[in-house]
Amino acid sequence: MEKKKIILDCDPGHDDAIAIMLAAKSKTIDLLGISIVAGNQTIDKTLKNALNVCQYLGLDVPVYPGCGQPMIRDKQVIAGDIHGESGLDGPVFEPLTKKAERKHGVDFLIETLLESDGDITVVTTGPMTNLGMAIRLCPDIVPKIKEIVLMGGCYQLGNVTPAAEFNIIADADAAHVAFTCGRKITMVGLDVTRKVLCYPEIMERMGKNENIASKLFIDLMTFFNKSQKEVYGWEGGPLHDPVTIAYLIDPTVLTVKEMFTQIDIRSEQSYGRTNCDFFHYTNNEPNSFVAIDIDTTKFWDIIEHGIREYN
Amino acid sequence: MEKKKIILDCDPGHDDAIAIMLAAKSKTIDLLGISIVAGNQTIDKTLKNALNVCQYLGLDVPVYPGCGQPMIRDKQVIAGDIHGESGLDGPVFEPLTKKAERKHGVDFLIETLLESDGDITVVTTGPMTNLGMAIRLCPDIVPKIKEIVLMGGCYQLGNVTPAAEFNIIADADAAHVAFTCGRKITMVGLDVTRKVLCYPEIMERMGKNENIASKLFIDLMTFFNKSQKEVYGWEGGPLHDPVTIAYLIDPTVLTVKEMFTQIDIRSEQSYGRTNCDFFHYTNNEPNSFVAIDIDTTKFWDIIEHGIREYN
Amino acid sequence: MEKKKIILDCDPGHDDAIAIMLAAKSKTIDLLGISIVAGNQTIDKTLKNALNVCQYLGLDVPVYPGCGQPMIRDKQVIAGDIHGESGLDGPVFEPLTKKAERKHGVDFLIETLLESDGDITVVTTGPMTNLGMAIRLCPDIVPKIKEIVLMGGCYQLGNVTPAAEFNIIADADAAHVAFTCGRKITMVGLDVTRKVLCYPEIMERMGKNENIASKLFIDLMTFFNKSQKEVYGWEGGPLHDPVTIAYLIDPTVLTVKEMFTQIDIRSEQSYGRTNCDFFHYTNNEPNSFVAIDIDTTKFWDIIEHGIREYN
Amino acid sequence: MEKKKIILDCDPGHDDAIAIMLAAKSKTIDLLGISIVAGNQTIDKTLKNALNVCQYLGLDVPVYPGCGQPMIRDKQVIAGDIHGESGLDGPVFEPLTKKAERKHGVDFLIETLLESDGDITVVTTGPMTNLGMAIRLCPDIVPKIKEIVLMGGCYQLGNVTPAAEFNIIADADAAHVAFTCGRKITMVGLDVTRKVLCYPEIMERMGKNENIASKLFIDLMTFFNKSQKEVYGWEGGPLHDPVTIAYLIDPTVLTVKEMFTQIDIRSEQSYGRTNCDFFHYTNNEPNSFVAIDIDTTKFWDIIEHGIREYN
Repeated sequence: MEKKKIILDCDPGHDDAIAIMLAAKSKTIDLLGISIVAGNQTIDKTLKNALNVCQYLGLDVPVYPGCGQPMIRDKQVIAGDIHGESGLDGPVFEPLTKKAERKHGVDFLIETLLESDGDITVVTTGPMTNLGMAIRLCPDIVPKIKEIVLMGGCYQLGNVTPAAEFNIIADADAAHVAFTCGRKITMVGLDVTRKVLCYPEIMERMGKNENIASKLFIDLMTFFNKSQKEVYGWEGGPLHDPVTIAYLIDPTVLTVKEMFTQIDIRSEQSYGRTNCDFFHYTNNEPNSFVAIDIDTTKFWDIIEHGIREYN
Repeated sequence: MEKKKIILDCDPGHDDAIAIMLAAKSKTIDLLGISIVAGNQTIDKTLKNALNVCQYLGLDVPVYPGCGQPMIRDKQVIAGDIHGESGLDGPVFEPLTKKAERKHGVDFLIETLLESDGDITVVTTGPMTNLGMAIRLCPDIVPKIKEIVLMGGCYQLGNVTPAAEFNIIADADAAHVAFTCGRKITMVGLDVTRKVLCYPEIMERMGKNENIASKLFIDLMTFFNKSQKEVYGWEGGPLHDPVTIAYLIDPTVLTVKEMFTQIDIRSEQSYGRTNCDFFHYTNNEPNSFVAIDIDTTKFWDIIEHGIREYN
Repeated sequence: MEKKKIILDCDPGHDDAIAIMLAAKSKTIDLLGISIVAGNQTIDKTLKNALNVCQYLGLDVPVYPGCGQPMIRDKQVIAGDIHGESGLDGPVFEPLTKKAERKHGVDFLIETLLESDGDITVVTTGPMTNLGMAIRLCPDIVPKIKEIVLMGGCYQLGNVTPAAEFNIIADADAAHVAFTCGRKITMVGLDVTRKVLCYPEIMERMGKNENIASKLFIDLMTFFNKSQKEVYGWEGGPLHDPVTIAYLIDPTVLTVKEMFTQIDIRSEQSYGRTNCDFFHYTNNEPNSFVAIDIDTTKFWDIIEHGIREYN
Repeated sequence: MEKKKIILDCDPGHDDAIAIMLAAKSKTIDLLGISIVAGNQTIDKTLKNALNVCQYLGLDVPVYPGCGQPMIRDKQVIAGDIHGESGLDGPVFEPLTKKAERKHGVDFLIETLLESDGDITVVTTGPMTNLGMAIRLCPDIVPKIKEIVLMGGCYQLGNVTPAAEFNIIADADAAHVAFTCGRKITMVGLDVTRKVLCYPEIMERMGKNENIASKLFIDLMTFFNKSQKEVYGWEGGPLHDPVTIAYLIDPTVLTVKEMFTQIDIRSEQSYGRTNCDFFHYTNNEPNSFVAIDIDTTKFWDIIEHGIREYN
C-alpha cells in the first residue's frame, strides 16, 4: 500500500508533539514536512518546540516557520494555561542543534502542493492561518489539495469560550477560508477528542513501552494532565491533535458524518463557533465531514503501536 | 406543604399541552393562570389550543392572550413542521366553549406579580416575549419574581439552527431581557429534554392509565412522535416543556449547575445561541442555573403520576 | 384648516423643551398629550422636566410617564454631558405642582390610537422605546398611526459614536420596530438638525420677544450652547428636536427624500446606525422619508413665531 | 528635493489609470512598481488594464500581479456597473506587448520594503488585500513602511452600501489589518473625492493639452462620467484615486484631521464601514489621518500639470 502523503501544520503544544511522533514513523504515512504556526504559544516557541521534538526523536523531517499572527485579528490568543510558559512544559530537552528551514511555511505549502499530483493531505492541528494564507496567496493550490483534516471546532461546548474551540477561535477567519475552499475537509473536533482522556491507566500502559517515544509521551502528558485538571477538573487530558493522525492511519477509528459547517466570523460573542448542521435543518449542501464518535480502544492501540515504532 | 404558585407562559404545542396537564392538577403546584404567546404556531392558534386543552381536561384556569410577535424581530418563527397546521395536530376536540380572558397576558403578568408577596415562579415554555415585555413595561415586577424556569436553549446542538433552540431563537431579545433581569433563572434546555424521548414503551405505559389525561397524552404524542421522526429521525419525540413542571414538582429530577449564560442577540449566524459558561472559562459571575442531567426514570414516574391525578 | 393631531413622545432635554413650547400653542397643531421616555436623562428626571416646562409655560396638556429603559439592552445611555445633571440645566423653575398622569405612556399611546380615526401623528424626539413597546404590545394600533415623525438618526456622522445618533443608539431595537412597522415614517436626522445652530445672533433675536417663552428659550439655550461648545466645539447648539414640530407646522421647511432605511441592530461597532439608502444602491423598496435639507431662515421664523404665541 | 518613493497598489479602473499616469511622470514621485489587485474588475482584467495603460503611456514601470480574492470573504465584489466589462471601458488600446512581472505582488511588496531604508510610501487605490497579506505574511515589513495612503472609506455616505465605500467593502478585513498595523495611515475617502467631479468644463480644459495623456484622460472620463451619471445622477464622475497621488505631490491639496478610525468587520449590514471618530467621542487614541477637505482648484491644477508632463 502506498503511504499517505501529508503536510502537518501545527503549533506544538503537547498533543501536537504526540501527533508528530505518531506521524513521523507511521508505516502508512509519508510526512513531507512540518509547518509551524502560532497558537498554543507564540511562533518562536512553537517553532522551537517542534524542532526539539524532532531532534529528541531523531526525526529527519524539515520544519518550516509560518505565521505568527492570525490573518485578520490584531490580538493573538495563546494557551499558556494549558501548555505552560514554553508551550511544551514538562520534558527537558538537550541543547537544540536542529535548524528550521529558511523557507516560510506558507511558501512550503504552496510550492509542495503545486508540484504534487494532488495526492497530499494537509493536516492542521493548530490555527489554520498558514493554510488560509496559502489558499488566498495562490488559489491554484486548491485543486491540488487531496483533503484537509483538522483538529478544531466542536458542535457541543467550546474550550475557550462556551461557543468556540481554541484552534478555530485563534483564527476563525482562516478556518472560514479553509471550510469554503471547496475541497474535502474533515473536522476532528472536541466532540470526539474529549473522549480520549489520558487517564492514569493509559499513562501506565504507554509507560511500559520503554523507549524515547514512551518517555516523551509520559513527560508531556504528566504536565498536560496536571494543567487540564486545574482548568477543567478532568483526571486525564484529552489527546486532541493525534486523533487526526490516528484517523489517517485507520479511518475506522472515527465515525464521521457529512454535514454543512459554517464558521461564525461575524459575532463578537460566538466568534469562532463551528455551526455544524448535524440534523440538516438548513438546506445547505454538506461541505464537510465531521467526526461524531471515536473508538477509544482502537485509538489507544494506535497510539501504543506508534510508540513502539520507536523501539 | 404550601403549593408553589406559578404562572405558566406557553405556546401550545404538544409538549406545552402536557405541561398544562401536569401543572393544573399537581398537589404541589398552584397554577394561577396561563398566558399565551406565539411560538409553535401563531397566537390565534396557540390561544385556541390552550383553551381546547383546558376545556378537554375540565380545568378552570384563566387563559390570557399575549404577544403575537417577538419583541424586536419583524419576522416570526413558527414550528409547523413539528406541531402541525393547528399547532396541536392529533387530538380531536369538541367545539370550543371556554373563553379567553380579555386581559392581555403581559398585563396579567404585571398585575399578578405586583400584587403578590414575591412568591410566584414564572414558567415559560415558549418564546419569552410576554415576560420580556412585562419586565420592560413595568420594571417594578422584577423584585417580585421568585424564580424564572424556562424550557429553552442548549449548550450543545440547537434544534432550529446548529446554534439555537426554538424558544430562544424565536425571541432571543426577550430571552436576553429575562437572563439579565437579575432574578434567579433556571434553564431547562435541549441538553436534558432530549433525553426524555417518548419511546413506544412509554406510550404503552402511559396508555394503560385509562383516563382523559392518558388519552390526550397518547393522541398528542402519536402525532408528535411521527413528526419528530420525520425531522430528526428519532423513534420517540423529546418531551421538552413538561420537564420544567416536573422539576418544580420534584427538583431532584434535574441536576443543575450554576453558570454564566449569555444570549447571542447580535450574530446573524448564531442568533439565539445560549452561550453557557459550563467550565467557567470567562470570569463572569454565574447568573443562571442550567440543567445538565435528568433522572429519566423519575421523570416518567412524575408524568404517570400526573396522568393519574385525572382518575 | 383642521389642526394636526399629534402625540409628542420625548425625553426633555433642552431641545425637547422647545419642541413642547412650539407644539403646545401652535395654531396648526393639536397636542393630545406628551409621553415621556428615558433618554437625555433618566425617566424620573425627564418626567420632571416635562412637567416643569408645562407648568412654567402654563400648558394644560397631560404628561404620561413611559419606559425608563430600552426595550432590550440592559444598559441605558444618557446624555448628561449635553443636558446637565437634571437633563434640563439652566432655567430655574418654581416648585412643581403639576402632576403626571397615572396612566403609563405606552398605554396612553395604545388607547389614544385605538380610539382615533387614524388621524394622529406620533412625533418622537427621544429614544423610540414607548412607540416600539406599544406596537408590539398591541399591533392593532399600527394601521391607526397616520405618520411617525422622529428626530433621530443620520446618514452622515453620528453624535454618540461615529456610526450612530443618540436617540437611535439609545434604543436601536425600538427604532427598528418603528421603521419596519409599515406606516409612513419621516426621519429628521442630524444631517439637517446640525444646520440649525443657535448662534449668538439667534439668541439676541429670540430674546427681543420678551415673554415667558423667550425667557425659557434663552435660559435653555445659554446652557445648551455652552455644553455643545465644550463637546463639539460649536459656537451654537443644534436645535434638533423642534425641527420635527416645525416640519409639521410647515412641511416646506424640510426637503425630504424617499429611501430605504435600515437600522443596524446587530453590529457592536455600528449599533444604531441608520443605513439610509440615499442613492438607492440596494434594490429595497423605500420605507421612509429622510430629511436631506432644511430652510434655516424659515425654521428660525417658525421658532420666533412660536415664541410670540406666548405673548 | 528627493523624490518620494512609492509603491502603487491598484485595480485599474478608470481613476486608477489616471493615478498611474500622474504618479509615473511626477518630478516629486519615484514610482517603484505597481502591484495589482482584483477590485474594479477581476484580477486578470485589472492586470491587463494596468499593462495597457503603461504601454500606452510608454511607462517603463514593473507591474506585479497580486491577489484575486479578498483575504477572507469567499465572494468578490466588482464594479462592472461603473468601470464596464473590461474594467477600463472607453479607450481602445493597441495589442498588448508589455508583460507582467512573474513575481507575485505580495512578494514584491515584502521584498521591496524589507530591502528599503524605511522610506517607501504604500499607496493603495483598490482593495487593500495585497498589503494586508504582505503584513501578515511578513510582519517585519511593518516598521519599514513610511506611510500608507489609501483611497477608500468615508465617514459620510458609502457608495456600495449606505455604510460602506467600494475599496473597503471589497476587503474590509484587509483594511482592518492595515489600519491596525501601527504605521502612519492617511485615508482619502469619498468625503473629499466626491468633491472633485469631472464636469464638462474640466474635460474641455484637460482636452486642450493635446498629448497622449490628455487623450487617455478624455477617453477614460467620457466613459466614466457616463456610468457615474447613470448610477448616481451626477454630471461629472468623481476622480477618486488620483487624489492620493495629488496629495503626495502637494500635501496642501487636502485638509487632514487626525482621528481614531475603526473598520466594521463584524456587522453584516454595516460591513466595511470606516467608523471615523471625527469628534473624538470615544477615548481611543487617534490612529489615522483622515482627509476632510480638498482644494479643488489646486487638485485640477495638479492633474493638468501631470498631463503636461507627457508633452
